[in-house]
Amino acid sequence: MTSELIYHLNLLPYSREELLLIVKEKVSEKRFKHILGVEKASIKLAKAYGDSVEKASIAALLHDYCKELSDELFIEEIKKNKLDCDLLNWNNNIWHGMVGRYIIENEIDLHDESILNAIEIHTTGAKKMSKLAKILYIADYIEEGRNFTGVKKAREIANKSLDEAVAYETSHTLLHLMEQRLSIYPLTIQTYNYYCVK
Amino acid sequence: MTSELIYHLNLLPYSREELLLIVKEKVSEKRFKHILGVEKASIKLAKAYGDSVEKASIAALLHDYCKELSDELFIEEIKKNKLDCDLLNWNNNIWHGMVGRYIIENEIDLHDESILNAIEIHTTGAKKMSKLAKILYIADYIEEGRNFTGVKKAREIANKSLDEAVAYETSHTLLHLMEQRLSIYPLTIQTYNYYCVK
Repeated sequence: MTSELIYHLNLLPYSREELLLIVKEKVSEKRFKHILGVEKASIKLAKAYGDSVEKASIAALLHDYCKELSDELFIEEIKKNKLDCDLLNWNNNIWHGMVGRYIIENEIDLHDESILNAIEIHTTGAKKMSKLAKILYIADYIEEGRNFTGVKKAREIANKSLDEAVAYETSHTLLHLMEQRLSIYPLTIQTYNYYCVK
Repeated sequence: MTSELIYHLNLLPYSREELLLIVKEKVSEKRFKHILGVEKASIKLAKAYGDSVEKASIAALLHDYCKELSDELFIEEIKKNKLDCDLLNWNNNIWHGMVGRYIIENEIDLHDESILNAIEIHTTGAKKMSKLAKILYIADYIEEGRNFTGVKKAREIANKSLDEAVAYETSHTLLHLMEQRLSIYPLTIQTYNYYCVK
């Protein structure tokens, strides 16, 4: 059970219980429930594919830590960290991961690059993702609270292959964005070119 | 009629008839027919939207000038011109425009940036395309020899709005690439984000 998980790796100065309280303070009740669902799915995938359960838990608990911050705060952070100024053309969907990782690094005192990178690209994917990054990207899509056409198929694929699950999710996300005529972040096309092209 | 068109602008050291002979030498019979179709459609669009008919003709006649060159020649050209080395990861579909413009500039002694740029991006589009670039991009898609699902609709839209025709073509090209699990060149996503997003 997730509640029995004890952090041993000293990746951050908190126990899982303390981290849960910190995250709960930062997001709505609905989002907190989603975050717990992502943690559960991430841990399951980490166990199935032989990755660190502790890292999977931390990445999942923190992946939406910045989702409810104001645009002004992200813009300030982009400027402060001298990040690619093209980021200023985007929005919360992209910022909460790509910029959020810097906020999390400071506020949570977490400096593990594998976790920070998984959080950074959890919405967009990237080429050559680490196993942890794939796990978080997929878990965010298939967690038990998700309920959209195709989610059952996505869960089935995730049981068989991380790479195929990344490909399925990326293709369907792109199709969804195009149907809604929403912007596509360039990194998502790198993910498509790397994982979806035959 | 196209055959009555006389070049006046001194953009290249050839008459239209001489240029036709040069292009005919360079491509297959089938492709030459396509090129003539693109010229006809380009001239029609240039007249309808008030752009230079002469530039439209030259851009169309030269847009596939490099389509049948060897990969080795493009790779050499990329290195010689110190172009973005990411181009080495792509193929003829991208190279015949993006790299072809440099070959055309040399071989045809054509230095008009508006024509060279239209040729450069005729497969990918770009953000903030010039009127001439839009005309070539669309004409290549709707010329009378094209026969695919949606081409009739594309022609109708081209009669009403260049921007909407760019959007229609870009969306359908992306969907086609995704269906076939083919690579998407990053510039195509810039075109999508600029012309397709509502």
